[in-house]
Amino acid sequence: MKIAIDAMGGDHAPKEIVLGALKAIETYTDVQIVLVGDEKKIKEYMKDHDRISIIHTEEVISSQDEPVRAVRRKKNASMVLAAKEVADGRADACISAGNTGALMAAGLFIVGRIEGIERPALSPTLPTIGGEGFVLLDVGANADAKPEHLLQYALMGSIYSQKVRGVSNPRVGLLNIGAEEKKGNELTKHTYELMQNLEVNFIGNVEARDLMEGVCDVAVTDGFTGNMVLKTVEGTAMSIMKMLKSALMSSWKSKLAAAVLKPDLYQLKTKMDYSEYGGAGLFGLKAPVIKAHGSSDATAIFNAVRQTREMVEGQVVETIRAAVEKTRTNSQS
Amino acid sequence: MKIAIDAMGGDHAPKEIVLGALKAIETYTDVQIVLVGDEKKIKEYMKDHDRISIIHTEEVISSQDEPVRAVRRKKNASMVLAAKEVADGRADACISAGNTGALMAAGLFIVGRIEGIERPALSPTLPTIGGEGFVLLDVGANADAKPEHLLQYALMGSIYSQKVRGVSNPRVGLLNIGAEEKKGNELTKHTYELMQNLEVNFIGNVEARDLMEGVCDVAVTDGFTGNMVLKTVEGTAMSIMKMLKSALMSSWKSKLAAAVLKPDLYQLKTKMDYSEYGGAGLFGLKAPVIKAHGSSDATAIFNAVRQTREMVEGQVVETIRAAVEKTRTNSQS
Repeated sequence: MKIAIDAMGGDHAPKEIVLGALKAIETYTDVQIVLVGDEKKIKEYMKDHDRISIIHTEEVISSQDEPVRAVRRKKNASMVLAAKEVADGRADACISAGNTGALMAAGLFIVGRIEGIERPALSPTLPTIGGEGFVLLDVGANADAKPEHLLQYALMGSIYSQKVRGVSNPRVGLLNIGAEEKKGNELTKHTYELMQNLEVNFIGNVEARDLMEGVCDVAVTDGFTGNMVLKTVEGTAMSIMKMLKSALMSSWKSKLAAAVLKPDLYQLKTKMDYSEYGGAGLFGLKAPVIKAHGSSDATAIFNAVRQTREMVEGQVVETIRAAVEKTRTNSQS
Repeated sequence: MKIAIDAMGGDHAPKEIVLGALKAIETYTDVQIVLVGDEKKIKEYMKDHDRISIIHTEEVISSQDEPVRAVRRKKNASMVLAAKEVADGRADACISAGNTGALMAAGLFIVGRIEGIERPALSPTLPTIGGEGFVLLDVGANADAKPEHLLQYALMGSIYSQKVRGVSNPRVGLLNIGAEEKKGNELTKHTYELMQNLEVNFIGNVEARDLMEGVCDVAVTDGFTGNMVLKTVEGTAMSIMKMLKSALMSSWKSKLAAAVLKPDLYQLKTKMDYSEYGGAGLFGLKAPVIKAHGSSDATAIFNAVRQTREMVEGQVVETIRAAVEKTRTNSQS
């Protein structure tokens, strides 16, 4: 299989992107990679490799660019060309650590939606205390969602958890402000009703405070709420770590103790680091499109390649297509 | 002034409620307290005091009770009678650590809304790294909000921050999934436009990840999102603390180091504890109604009394009434 990677996206591009790609190519001998970006800069970090090719371009979409306009106008941007490789059938999937909004636009306009999918969903896997993680979707592909969209998110998240994360009967929860059936806003109340008839293992409403405890494998929500929860988790974790750090530096005694604890604290940090689980899939497109975190290092890119490879091998797109088709046939009959 | 306290609400009632009331009465000589609940149980923890009276009742609303029905049917419940003291003018404000939904219903149906306020807002103050805290509203009094409601939340949060929290020109932010003006869902986009003309110090959109950094003094959002953010902060903090604890207990070396760090870690925990800032005010009612956290101890109740006293002294309700009246006159002219 062939994976196109935007070599110029992310805070540490192209260096970490190239190093991550090299690591992946060594591990997975069935993978070919095409790196899209400035050939000269890319070649600073790699020698020729028979399973890595380069598509040269100097145009780049930056994190400041307005997403939709950038994708439409910068026709030779590394991200756009990577998506085009997929759209034209020369690659099976693509990865970028660049501008999230632009990648969503490139996925939608260039790769295209699976027929029957109304809205793609940006779907990261977040950490849990036990280490199993859970898929949260949507985290912002689509701010104003309808109940029908949330049902498709449930279907897609469930299929991904089975095929890629190896969860046999994924527990799908509806993210809500209370566990009881009648809780929530108009959207969640209506979705709850419809969710009962969907062919997923629906376990009812789940609350944000229980997510990291591993209350479900897939948490379904609208893009506005999902993005809010994602950023609240990030912000809270970052703030606590900051406070912890300043507590540990407050005296020579605490500095000594902190030195002893370093490996344990490092482990804690690793547990919170969700690039371990790969990037955020943009589910509902005709091929896997993966958004790696903007701060991705080589390991994060390696993990994103692993995840992408599993999505291709596990035929996630084809399975989603068949499931959506089935749902539509059912609702018509 | 006289404050009515539901002595039977919360996980540690009546003991901690009574002890907190006693502590408050000693500190604030201008405060009278009426404790509502089981006289015999209350008296286990206190002697007669000339500024504390008791209204005896054996009926209680539990955390399992369906809120609206409980308030309507349990006419002699301690929470209901405390609210009635306020409604009938015998008390200036009331506090409960009991069932949140029931207190919101009691506030709405018994105490009543300020004329012109469309929806009350549940408004806790959450911690920031620097210790100043910020008011978040609404966190769930009203799941489906309209832009007009959010404008009133902004007004009420701003007034509260000035009068009670001593912030001279409170920075009001609209909680959103991006800082740029055009970001968000229909609700936030529309609210952003209207907020420009409101007489508050509107600083634009704020993101959830920056809240604990102290990006604003008042964060305005709909009740669904606010509740989600509140519970995500709680859940993330709890999970990290749990992981930290297990890291600190993983070996005898780390246990020793943890012992040295105990005071520093305790301080971190205190910083995260938002009962320090008092309870969550139910803004927009004809008198201050304060929801203390369910797990409130005597200190949390003491803080809630202090906060309530400041709301009464600072004439928060009267100021909100005047501001709303002015907004309505302006929009009519």
